[in-house]
Amino acid sequence: MTERRRFVKELVGMGAAVWAASMGGEGRAAAQAPASAPGASRGPAPSGKAASSTPPPGKKLGYALVGLGSLSQNQIAPALAAKTKHCKLTGLVSGHPEKAREWAKKYGVPETGIYDYQNFDQIKNNPDIDVVYVVLPNSMHAEFTIRAAQAGKHVLCEKPMAISVKECDAMISACRQAGRKLAIAYRLHFEPNNLELVRMAREKTLGSVKVIEAGAGFPIGDPKQWRLDKALAGGGSLMDIGIYALQAARYISGEEPVSVSAVSTTTDPVKFKPGVDESVLFTLKFPSGIIASCASSYATGLNRFRASAERGWFEVQPALNYVGIKGRKMDQGKLVDFDFPAIDHFAAEMDDFADCILNGKETRVPGEEGRRDLRIMTAIYEAAASGRTVSLAKG
Amino acid sequence: MTERRRFVKELVGMGAAVWAASMGGEGRAAAQAPASAPGASRGPAPSGKAASSTPPPGKKLGYALVGLGSLSQNQIAPALAAKTKHCKLTGLVSGHPEKAREWAKKYGVPETGIYDYQNFDQIKNNPDIDVVYVVLPNSMHAEFTIRAAQAGKHVLCEKPMAISVKECDAMISACRQAGRKLAIAYRLHFEPNNLELVRMAREKTLGSVKVIEAGAGFPIGDPKQWRLDKALAGGGSLMDIGIYALQAARYISGEEPVSVSAVSTTTDPVKFKPGVDESVLFTLKFPSGIIASCASSYATGLNRFRASAERGWFEVQPALNYVGIKGRKMDQGKLVDFDFPAIDHFAAEMDDFADCILNGKETRVPGEEGRRDLRIMTAIYEAAASGRTVSLAKG
Repeated sequence: MTERRRFVKELVGMGAAVWAASMGGEGRAAAQAPASAPGASRGPAPSGKAASSTPPPGKKLGYALVGLGSLSQNQIAPALAAKTKHCKLTGLVSGHPEKAREWAKKYGVPETGIYDYQNFDQIKNNPDIDVVYVVLPNSMHAEFTIRAAQAGKHVLCEKPMAISVKECDAMISACRQAGRKLAIAYRLHFEPNNLELVRMAREKTLGSVKVIEAGAGFPIGDPKQWRLDKALAGGGSLMDIGIYALQAARYISGEEPVSVSAVSTTTDPVKFKPGVDESVLFTLKFPSGIIASCASSYATGLNRFRASAERGWFEVQPALNYVGIKGRKMDQGKLVDFDFPAIDHFAAEMDDFADCILNGKETRVPGEEGRRDLRIMTAIYEAAASGRTVSLAKG
Repeated sequence: MTERRRFVKELVGMGAAVWAASMGGEGRAAAQAPASAPGASRGPAPSGKAASSTPPPGKKLGYALVGLGSLSQNQIAPALAAKTKHCKLTGLVSGHPEKAREWAKKYGVPETGIYDYQNFDQIKNNPDIDVVYVVLPNSMHAEFTIRAAQAGKHVLCEKPMAISVKECDAMISACRQAGRKLAIAYRLHFEPNNLELVRMAREKTLGSVKVIEAGAGFPIGDPKQWRLDKALAGGGSLMDIGIYALQAARYISGEEPVSVSAVSTTTDPVKFKPGVDESVLFTLKFPSGIIASCASSYATGLNRFRASAERGWFEVQPALNYVGIKGRKMDQGKLVDFDFPAIDHFAAEMDDFADCILNGKETRVPGEEGRRDLRIMTAIYEAAASGRTVSLAKG
């Protein structure tokens, strides 16, 4: 157990490197090679050493939340208030001044830290705000990321990064021009059970992975919410929840898909208008020959990522809950539960981004990573509409 | 518990009707309508009453096994010897006379019940053989089914029924002309946990099914076995094991797919020659809008069928083992294991076929059912090769 705990600690510490080697930053070339490429399978890349440095004790970066919906209310603000080590809530951006003032009182944010969508650009004059966390409907991500960067702030942006690849390019470009960091809030990149899947795949603990199955979905409620409005959401279940299944297929394989095929369905055309998928199945083919079968749905619960390898399988189920993720593996006929401590995903992602900013490190979830998903999701929608496999070979 | 047991008993009894209403025989029209069609959702069809009749006590039909490979050796012959109520082993057909004589001694089959592939047609003169059970490599199913029918015997044929739709047509036609029954050995049509999935889907216990996920696979061993020989197997993993995932999608939905898309992969081109798929993913779309994401593999273990519905999910996992199938459901956040007694799948299918013959009933797994799978599998291979969705709307 002691060894297990130590391993967990190391794993969370080295997470950045494991992911970097397979997914982002300088590891991207490795990611496009088969998982058997040495760089992708050897665990921590050189940058892993840097991951052990941490911000100076006591130093906290100020986060402003843009959008005070349920995710901010139930997850992000509480994490900032009580669970992060290197972050504090110093700004609130909302279209509802009453709400913002209420939150300010509750969380000890000064009146001067409150903005609305019009005067938002004035945050450039607020030295207490280091990072802007964009928690708005998808179609507003690009605008507020770009405005935040232009105001000199680093940006953490909720997934999906935007509603088109073109928007992603503009966001990346704006942050680069402003000399500010951009990260996408892919919280599962910090979750120990999901990280264990990545480690097992990369280290071929049960042999090479052959087939990945990933499902992400929930029965959506209120038909009037922004998630069901094409103009605000940019799509349907795939953009919002299926993206987790896509992510899982990519981080477990450690590769970028070369082609996608897809089928979508609508059983409730009143609730799900054209352009807002109710459910979509998609299959991905990776360069090494790994294939992934993924499902996304707003009509039913789907919540499992599984890798089937030569000598067994390993999975998380539930895979993407905020609390209660469980991992296990079937190792030659023996079922073994993972044993990782629960973490707060949002605290972990915000602390990691603070660490990257304070110590000049690359984030494991840069804008380029968000852009890759947009590119693939665009192809998935194209494949579903055309009934043809869409190549992603280059571009 | 008493009620549970009673239910199990009824379920196994009514199985024929549940399946018939959704899959085969006169139920076929209903199967092509949405699952909400009254006939498909009301439980036992009229023929369900007949299902409670059983063969006269003591009356046993004689089965001849054609092909004495491992399935016959480890499953079918032991079931005939000790587990069936209405069947007995009275014939052995093999290319290995020594082996046949050994088996004859072990199972008390008279010397006159032994045949080889040349003199097989002489079984027409053997009144102790009522049924021929074809347990040969796939490409030999058609020939021996047709010869058996022409010899006046009923035929139970292993899955896949044959290696082409054309062969299926010839088999159906030969049995019809001879006035003999033809059943395909889809053993899971008799397995209580799988039947429970069908019942829950049909009765919408957790609301309408929205997404089905089904995986069937195992890492295949000996590269020289007939399963890896295109001429004998007619294909690869899909024909042999993926067919279970296809079946699951069809029996859980209770519908016939209108289109398929597919992607296949080969990571070991030495072992898996052209025409013998290593792994294939396929997606099916059904008339009611249900979609199914299926995986088939000879490279890794896949063994789960799951239906995700409006208010929860239900699954079997393992799904297709000869022994040890487990079912469970997630009913609004509560995980409940199914509690069905284990049965011998082969004894059940052989006894059911005996019952159909003795009492003039329709089998729930007729040749037409096997033909449907061949038609769909042919389309899956076509979709994988072309990268295009293949329509199955009619034909």
